[in-house]
Parts: sequence; C-alpha cells; structure tokens
Amino acid sequence: MTNADMNYVRNCWYVAGWVQDLEPGKPTSTDILAEPIVIYRGDSGRLVAMEDRCVHRLAQLSFGRCETGDRLRCMYHGLLFDPDGKVVEIPGQDVIPPKARVRSYPVIEKHSWIWVWMGDPALADEALIPPAVGFDDPNYILGRGFLDYDTEARLINDNLLDFTHLAFVHQNSFGVEESYGYEQPEIRALDRGVRFSRWATRKRRMVADRDTAPCDAFSTYDFLLPGVLLMWSGVFPVGTAKALGKAKPDFSKAMGDVTFTSQAVTPMTARKSRYFFSWGPHRDHGDEKLRDILMGIADIAFNEDKVVIEAQQRVIDKTPSPQIMPTAADRGVTLFNRLVEKIVREESGERPASEAAE
Amino acid sequence: MTNADMNYVRNCWYVAGWVQDLEPGKPTSTDILAEPIVIYRGDSGRLVAMEDRCVHRLAQLSFGRCETGDRLRCMYHGLLFDPDGKVVEIPGQDVIPPKARVRSYPVIEKHSWIWVWMGDPALADEALIPPAVGFDDPNYILGRGFLDYDTEARLINDNLLDFTHLAFVHQNSFGVEESYGYEQPEIRALDRGVRFSRWATRKRRMVADRDTAPCDAFSTYDFLLPGVLLMWSGVFPVGTAKALGKAKPDFSKAMGDVTFTSQAVTPMTARKSRYFFSWGPHRDHGDEKLRDILMGIADIAFNEDKVVIEAQQRVIDKTPSPQIMPTAADRGVTLFNRLVEKIVREESGERPASEAAE
Amino acid sequence: MTNADMNYVRNCWYVAGWVQDLEPGKPTSTDILAEPIVIYRGDSGRLVAMEDRCVHRLAQLSFGRCETGDRLRCMYHGLLFDPDGKVVEIPGQDVIPPKARVRSYPVIEKHSWIWVWMGDPALADEALIPPAVGFDDPNYILGRGFLDYDTEARLINDNLLDFTHLAFVHQNSFGVEESYGYEQPEIRALDRGVRFSRWATRKRRMVADRDTAPCDAFSTYDFLLPGVLLMWSGVFPVGTAKALGKAKPDFSKAMGDVTFTSQAVTPMTARKSRYFFSWGPHRDHGDEKLRDILMGIADIAFNEDKVVIEAQQRVIDKTPSPQIMPTAADRGVTLFNRLVEKIVREESGERPASEAAE
Repeated sequence: MTNADMNYVRNCWYVAGWVQDLEPGKPTSTDILAEPIVIYRGDSGRLVAMEDRCVHRLAQLSFGRCETGDRLRCMYHGLLFDPDGKVVEIPGQDVIPPKARVRSYPVIEKHSWIWVWMGDPALADEALIPPAVGFDDPNYILGRGFLDYDTEARLINDNLLDFTHLAFVHQNSFGVEESYGYEQPEIRALDRGVRFSRWATRKRRMVADRDTAPCDAFSTYDFLLPGVLLMWSGVFPVGTAKALGKAKPDFSKAMGDVTFTSQAVTPMTARKSRYFFSWGPHRDHGDEKLRDILMGIADIAFNEDKVVIEAQQRVIDKTPSPQIMPTAADRGVTLFNRLVEKIVREESGERPASEAAE
Repeated sequence: MTNADMNYVRNCWYVAGWVQDLEPGKPTSTDILAEPIVIYRGDSGRLVAMEDRCVHRLAQLSFGRCETGDRLRCMYHGLLFDPDGKVVEIPGQDVIPPKARVRSYPVIEKHSWIWVWMGDPALADEALIPPAVGFDDPNYILGRGFLDYDTEARLINDNLLDFTHLAFVHQNSFGVEESYGYEQPEIRALDRGVRFSRWATRKRRMVADRDTAPCDAFSTYDFLLPGVLLMWSGVFPVGTAKALGKAKPDFSKAMGDVTFTSQAVTPMTARKSRYFFSWGPHRDHGDEKLRDILMGIADIAFNEDKVVIEAQQRVIDKTPSPQIMPTAADRGVTLFNRLVEKIVREESGERPASEAAE
Repeated sequence: MTNADMNYVRNCWYVAGWVQDLEPGKPTSTDILAEPIVIYRGDSGRLVAMEDRCVHRLAQLSFGRCETGDRLRCMYHGLLFDPDGKVVEIPGQDVIPPKARVRSYPVIEKHSWIWVWMGDPALADEALIPPAVGFDDPNYILGRGFLDYDTEARLINDNLLDFTHLAFVHQNSFGVEESYGYEQPEIRALDRGVRFSRWATRKRRMVADRDTAPCDAFSTYDFLLPGVLLMWSGVFPVGTAKALGKAKPDFSKAMGDVTFTSQAVTPMTARKSRYFFSWGPHRDHGDEKLRDILMGIADIAFNEDKVVIEAQQRVIDKTPSPQIMPTAADRGVTLFNRLVEKIVREESGERPASEAAE
C-alpha cells in the first residue's frame, strides 16, 4: 500500500488522538494517510508531530526519548532531532549533513483533539479545524473513546453520511424505529461538508431507562472535511415539529435528551482507520449518569457499525470490479464524496472537469 | 484471488452445508468458487441461495433478516430481496431500477446436503446430484462433520483419489497395513468420475476394539464431480476374495463392518476449502456405538490428512515453479483431473484438443 | 517471495540449528535462503540435509520416517529417499525415473552447530566454517538459545555490525553507559568479515550483581560470512588500556568477566530470520551461576533488539522507496555489506566493477 491508494484530501486537519491520552514526554505512534507519524509533548509543553522514521536506518522514532528543547532522540543509534525534524546530533560524527532531517507536521490541540495537518504546511490554517465540542466546554458532560476498523476510512464516512442505517443496524442499541429508515432528512451542502437535519415525530425517547412517552425528536449534524461529524440532538413535546413547520428548534426549550456528539474518522492506511468519538448531554438536560448510559449505548452501537462495515470491506475486497448502486438515501454521501473528489483533483493539480469543459 | 484462479467445473452441484446446520429463518454465509453466497430457508420452507453482496453498497446480505414471502432484507440500509435476487423495496425510494438484483443460484436439499449449482442455471439438473447416502436413509446409522482446509480443493481431491496414502498417513488411525500402499486398486473411468475397488486380503479388521482376526476386506468408492466420494466397505471371511476371483461381493453376506461414507470437497476460495463427511455402519452390521467409534477414528484420520495437505500447500506456495512427478499410484488422480480439465475447457468455450485435431 | 529476493552469499555455511536440539531419527524442518530443508540424523549417526519437498506431489519430507541406511521415507505416499536425495523406492512402481531426486545439501556439525552449505556442493569447504566456541570446548561454560525475527537477516547483521546501539537500546540490560555510543571501535577488514576491538575505560562492570567498581573493559569480535559473530570480552584494572596503548590485552590477566559469545544470523525467508546465540564465562573467570546471570541478561537484551528491528522492518515495508543515510558509526556495516555484495556479484557470474574497469 502506498500513498497513491489514499485518495483523501491532504490540505486539512486530521484527528490523531485524544489530548488526554498523550502523556507528556512519552512519544506515541500513529499512521495517517499511510504516513508513520510520531507525536509527543516536549518539555516546553509544545506538541510535536514528525515522520516516525529515522533518517539513518529507518528505525521508529516513537521508541525514542524526549530531551530538553522539545527534542527527540532515536533510541537505536542515538540521533537527536529538533522539533522541526532537523537532526542536531549524530553520536560519533561531527558534521550533520543538511539532508539529515525528517518531515515535521503542523499540529494543534483543540476541542480535546490533536489535529495534524497532512498537506502543504504553508497552507495550514487553524480556522479550518471543525468546531467540535471538547472536554473544555463547560456546557457538556462528555464521554469519549475510539475504535479501530480494518477498513478504508471512506466506508465509515459513507456510513455516517446516511443515517438510514440507524433503522436497520441500530434497532437494538439506539432504539430507532424502522420507519425512520423510510424518511429522508433535509440536506444542505456546506463549503467543507454537508448538513443534515430531521424531525422524527411520534418517536419514543431514545434512552432506554427513562420515560418512553412519545415525543418529537430533532437532530442536526454537519459532516465536515476530512471526516468529522458534529451532531446536536434533543427531544421536544409532541407537536413541536408541526408547530415549527419542521424548522430548527431552540434546544434550550427541549424537554430533554439534549446531547452533543463529535466523531472523527482518520484514514490510517489503505485498510485501517481509527474512529474517535465523544458523546454526552448538555449540562441543563443531563448529568454524569446520563453520560454513562449514552456511552454504554455508544459502545454497543458503534460496534454494530464496525461488524457491518468490516464485513462490507471483506466483500468489496473479494469482488473483482466492485460497483455500487446509489439510492435516494445516498444524497449526502454523494455530495460529500464529490466534494472530496473535487478537492483531491485540485490538490493533484488537475483542473476540475467542469472548468476543463469551458 | 479471482474466479480466474478457480479452475473447477461450474456446471455441477457443490455441497454448501449439512441441512441439519441450517436453522429456518437464519441466513448463513459461505463461499463457493470464490463467490460469496447467502443461504437461508424462507418462511415457506423453501431453500434460497443468492449472492451474499447487496447491490447498494456491497454489504453482506447474510447479516440480513428473513421476511415473509421467502424474502431477505439487507440490514444495512434496508433493501428487500425476493428469493430470485430481485430488489423489491428500497427504503425512501419509489422506483426500483431493473438492474437492482443480485445473482440467485439453483439450490436443492438431498441426502441431507444443501447442493448449490454454480453454473448456468438453465442447465441445472437434479439428476446430476451424486447418489450420496443421507440421514434419511433408514439402512445406515451415520455420523457427520466438516473440516476447513487452508488449501485449494484440488489437493484434497488428489488425496481422496489415491488411497496409497492410507498406508502412510493413517497407520495409527484407520490401522491400514503398510502393504496396502504397495497394491493398486481396480480403477474404472465413469462418465462423471472414477470408480475404485479393491480386496485387501489377510488384513486385520479395522476397528480397534473389536476382534482382530484376519479377514478379506472389500471396499469400493466412486469419486464424482465436482469432488464427492461415496464409499462402501465390508469385511468377509478369509478366502472370499479368492473365491470371488476378486469380484465385487454381496455386502449382505459380509461378516461385519459394512459401512458407508459420503465425503464432499467444496472449493471456497483459491486457498480455502470445506470438507464435509459422514460415516457409519449399515443397520444390519452395526449400531450407534460402532458409529461413534467410527466418528472418533474419522476425527483423528481426517485431521492427519489436513496436517499433511496444508503443509503440502505451504511447500507448493513457496516453490517458484511447482512441478509434480506422477507415479503408478496416480492413475485415478490423473483420470479425474483430465476429466475436470476437459469439462472446464468445454465450459470456457474452447474445443477440446482431440476434436481440434480432426 | 522467491530466491531472487534473497541477496545473500550462497557459497558458505549457514547455521541450521543447535546439535543438541536434533533428536536422532526425528527429521526437522527449516528454511534457509527461502529453500525448505529437512535435516535428520540417520541410523548410522550421519547428518543429512535435503530439500524438504517430495518429488511426487511436494509433500513435506520432514513429516517422514527415518529408515535404515540413513534413508527417509515420505509419509504421504511412501517414496523412499537415499541420503543423497535419490528416490530408491516408489510403492507400487517398479522403475524409478532418474529425475526422481531432490537436492541434498552438504551438512556438518561443528562447535555444537549444524552447518548447511547453500552453494555449489563442489565448493563446500569445512575450513570456511567460522571458529565458533561450542559446548565441546572445555574452557567455556555456555548457555544457548535462539530467537525468531519477522525481518530480513540483513537488518540483524547491520545491528551486530554497529555496537553504537548498545548505548541506546541496551542501557537497561547490558548496562552500557551512554558515552559508549560516542566512541568508535578499531575496525579492520578481514578476508571473510570485519574485526572490531575496543577499550571502554572507566566503565562500571557489566554484570549487575557483582562489584561495580570502575574498570577498563576490552572486547573484540569478528563478524564473519554469512553472519556469524564471535566475541571475547574481559574487564581489567583501571589503567590497563592506557598501559597497553589500547592494544589487545592478555585475557588470562583479566580481573574478571572473561566471556565468549557466538551468534549466528540465518536468513530463512525474505522476512524471516533465526538468530542463534551462546554466551558464557571462561572457566577461570566464572561458573554456572555467572553463565545463568549472563543468559538472563541476554534474554532481555536480545529481545530489546528484536523489538527495535522488527519495528524498523515494518517502517521499511511501508516506505515506498526506503533510503538509508549512513553515519560515521556505519563503517563496519558498510565494509561487511560491500563484501557481501562483491561475493554475491561474483557468484551470479558478474565481473566485479573494479575488474570490469581494467
């Protein structure tokens, strides 16, 4: 597998991990877009992300040792790296050749996630980080986790871009009624993603151990480049949807279950992805107990997705020329994938087909 | 691995499983000739076999739900399939495109096996199912099982087409004397296979815990397309072979150990096969206790084959240009493999070499 | 993977195993240079090494049975092999075709190792076996072991040819001070390898539970084709190095810790290697207890290497065009690898570049 198999947008921020999981001074290793990356927090507190591959003999730098000056020493033959990837010491050698450097990546911590910019460093723009809700937001009581998939990231994105599957995959976890699969959300293209909104009327409330009276449930989510889902949900008295003409409600008037979830899909290699997620109630509508209930549901539900999608990947991989047949429910999937294709084409220097036709 | 690697006859019935292992309304998944297949028994009791790959996004249909009308619903986004593979419902979409269908396969249950026709459905002919003995035959008291091999099916067929190996692989299980490996059976070509018969004189009786007096043992088996072995055995008083001029004896006159075994080799993928087997005594010559003893022996013996053949496959796979050197004992192997090659050539539309020469 | 990926010298002796691990009459299987090899001690006591692949249907001969005359019988269909690889019996067949033979390999036991000659048998020369110290040497009290690597052998050789890594990989096992990584040994090219010698002054003694007073430590090792390390070490009073002008000391005058280690790296396949090792004190400078302490350290240290090198291999394998950048510490690595390349070129019939230029 090479980078060539990884047709993902490069000029954007990918989630590399939860900030909470990074111990200061302890390098950690990950792959993003098939590139091995070491991430560490140096002695100054600064986050560093660089190629996880020593220039000398390609040993893994993430086995290395953090040293003063936010530096990292390769613990195979002792080469020492500056946080910008430059080698500053080679044991037993006086002159450091200028080519002795590894790639370093722009890296930012925000909303409790570590974001790595995989494209041209000159274009790295913090404003492009999706507005996720992190553990630093006092309004939400969140839980978090991640799940590894033996699949390409695209299949997980497709899953998150078509919630029809909730009615079939998650009947026993999210408890969505099957009728949900027959209704389409409102869909709107965004500059860097797609927005979905929907009212599900007459739905029983989601969370199992609370009251099960009918209600109007509203949820809206943005799915943003490179693969980040940000969703707000809440339940309202029956009739609210109708009264509002199905417009977006004021969450502060919800009768309950106002929750937020951030989810991020990171392509590691051609057939490996990491799926990060948080979920929890708004402080006015829930507590730690509800958060724990939600996380218990998420554990079950996200594993239901994993089982289905990993099987889908295996079927795709044993199909000589895999072809899909999009349905009406695929509108969001198609919008997002076209956006990705357009940007990937632009990044590779091709003129988009539409302009080429002019 | 693609279908191209699978040079097996297509126009015949392959064993997909034991009827007893298929729970009504519970779809099950298998691969035959590298094609993923879902099999289920619908609400009418009918058996259905179809492509295990949804037309929409290639999810695995075997994760689906059986519905009325012998239908199967994909539990990813809810597409509903008729037993002939046609999509009859797409949630949220009114029109079903005509191309929305998966392949369905002729499927029959007979002799306790589920048989799937992998070739042209128009040529599916129930008469081509080998006359195995199933659990519905009141004359036999059978046990059954199956074993998965990490090998191509051809190597297992080759094994079953040359019983010389009994003298070397199975000395400690079937208890065959080594001299057995030095004698050749009578071999006769059949339209769709090869027939083997042999008398092994002065052999001690096979089953360990019974009397071990010498005897004349007779066995005969057909090995039939695509890879089905049907064998009858029995032991007779010393002298019977000579008295009959080595002709086939009347099993009803056997002194004991009259048994029947059906065995079927199904190519799943290029390097995965499933080996189904039953074995047991004729009701006049044995009981449940003997059946259990035989199955205990089979467990040991069939695993001895698996160890040898999986090692053989590993050696083949690390050999740049693997070449075999057939011996005198390979006559049956050669007859059968030529038959397979001839039919595969015919199926692929080539004229056989013999006709081309005319 | 084919032989073509295995650019190693062929005309030399490779270690196939410890003599002590070979039970008489029990064939054992290994791969060397991607060739499957069966090794056994016949009834005459003679060692035999031959292709582990029956001429008939490529079954594994190492599942076979040793018979009189140092012969081996394939236990699939009973072919019998002479120790020179010739088939001498085919059950049920009178004539043995001349091509019915497998390759046999020159094989010798020496210094407690089984050595197999992988090149032209006519060139096999016992004098080319490196002068390792075996368990038959009364002067040393040795322990032994082996470790399997999921890497090419070359990476393990490289590791053993640059002891800089002791200062970084083995700080917690061999207890080498980090300064050691900044000093270079004396290096000398040998006909069939490279010799390293070094004094490490002011070093604390290596073995943890003994006195930790400063000392001058001397060690010297030869790294010989195809990948055999032979090392002698000892500690001396502080000042010895200076007094000797850093020349080689007389080990009989050491204050302690005179030890010997043999290590051999055998390429099994393109990504699998076996690393054999022994280690122990000279009888005048240690006992069984010290030997056990050393083996405990070796277990930890050699596993430290394995972790680093297997990670290095994974990084190399996910790098599209892996490039190394040699440092000053690589002199020994470069000398040895050039020697290997020169001989591999000669063996493949090419004139060396230096001669071609004349």
